[in-house]
Amino acid sequence: MMHHLSPGQTSPGKVFLVGAGPGDPDLLTLRALRCLMQADVVLHDRLVDARVLHYAPEHARLVDVGKRAGQSQSQAWIERLMIAEARKGLQVVRLKGGDPYVFGRGGEEAEALARAGIAFEVIPGLSSAIAVPALAGIPVLHRHYASLLTIVSGHRSSAEEMALWGQCLAHAGTLVILMGMANLAKIVIGLRQVGVPAQTPVAVIASGSSPHAQTIIGDLNTITQQTSTITAPAVIVIGHVVALHALVPTDMSSPLLCQAQP
Amino acid sequence: MMHHLSPGQTSPGKVFLVGAGPGDPDLLTLRALRCLMQADVVLHDRLVDARVLHYAPEHARLVDVGKRAGQSQSQAWIERLMIAEARKGLQVVRLKGGDPYVFGRGGEEAEALARAGIAFEVIPGLSSAIAVPALAGIPVLHRHYASLLTIVSGHRSSAEEMALWGQCLAHAGTLVILMGMANLAKIVIGLRQVGVPAQTPVAVIASGSSPHAQTIIGDLNTITQQTSTITAPAVIVIGHVVALHALVPTDMSSPLLCQAQP
Repeated sequence: MMHHLSPGQTSPGKVFLVGAGPGDPDLLTLRALRCLMQADVVLHDRLVDARVLHYAPEHARLVDVGKRAGQSQSQAWIERLMIAEARKGLQVVRLKGGDPYVFGRGGEEAEALARAGIAFEVIPGLSSAIAVPALAGIPVLHRHYASLLTIVSGHRSSAEEMALWGQCLAHAGTLVILMGMANLAKIVIGLRQVGVPAQTPVAVIASGSSPHAQTIIGDLNTITQQTSTITAPAVIVIGHVVALHALVPTDMSSPLLCQAQP
Repeated sequence: MMHHLSPGQTSPGKVFLVGAGPGDPDLLTLRALRCLMQADVVLHDRLVDARVLHYAPEHARLVDVGKRAGQSQSQAWIERLMIAEARKGLQVVRLKGGDPYVFGRGGEEAEALARAGIAFEVIPGLSSAIAVPALAGIPVLHRHYASLLTIVSGHRSSAEEMALWGQCLAHAGTLVILMGMANLAKIVIGLRQVGVPAQTPVAVIASGSSPHAQTIIGDLNTITQQTSTITAPAVIVIGHVVALHALVPTDMSSPLLCQAQP
């Protein structure tokens, strides 16, 4: 619904920075769902699951603002669009995979909105860094295996960063790397160079919480080769908690009462 | 509803390790809500918000298994109860604040269930470590302020751990401490001793996503004194992202369309 404003009336437009979680629409929060159902415009990342977008009302305009090879939309363009749509008096949902503030530039977008004087609200979502391993049977923390969780972006792999990540692993830490597949070989070599043992367990979980999720278990020695054919986005988990990956429920004869019916 | 089983019939009982998120029932996931609405027994931590428990059906038995001073229930007792209730054929919801695998012993409970041959499922929840700062206007990560997020428990404060936490802060990291209020003075001294600057920004956010949430902003020099009267559970955020705390939406004249009606 368009809100036609009379002259002088304050625009009721607003932007909601919404975390869509790891993909499965069942893992949306109630607030995210309600927000999506009231949207006039949804500006979504490329990675947001199509099943989540189905919750937007029929009249809502869906805009894929995701970066694609060869036609990448600049961050500034996204921010301008968000602001322009809100100024029209629309309810704008900026929908992001995972949580808006765990990478993904939610903070920059909130700053742009604040500077422009646009009302906004942040709706946290399940971060893939924690939820995707859990759905694959891996607790990111566990009293007997890990007492510290470090979440990083795989876009970075300087020697200094490798040293710090190695320190976290050396002190009973779990390291979760998002957006790290393109750099995985480099990261593995970097961690080995700072002394992280080759036998340190590694899990790569591709396609998050989708029905095509795939978990590959290995160690620093083997993981690069094991995942050489993976092209989907993946969460990388490094540390001793990976040994717990068998914690995925295996008794599928029992009804999964809490799953939505297909 | 009790499932009365004929002799020899396999028990359909199952345990759901469910993350309740930071408190506000609007921040439950759809799957957690559905699960709670189908529960026969809910074993909940003390910190789970009463508004969340209202979603359990009338017939469901609610058991507070939270640790209280003087009458702490052992972890083994909780695990035995969970298993015994499932063996009766019941749908058991083990409801935890935040995410089941971010501290809180979800991993140990999953192991106990797997060992006992009980079917179980893990339903991730919003971790307070990320969602509570976001609701207070603090993005835990931001391209210009922090590129690494480390989540720890404040129960620990050895010199070795302080050195590692200090390294994370020194390398553009954000440190989020859960359950750290009792140890805050000790942690502050420990971080100062490993060279973390006194002016490093610190936020303490008490009472998570409840209507009584309270955010205190200071630095390592001031925070202990500023929070001396806080007795509620709190999330501690250390690092330069704290400077962004003004990112909380201030334009409350705009309708919060995505909030549930009271």
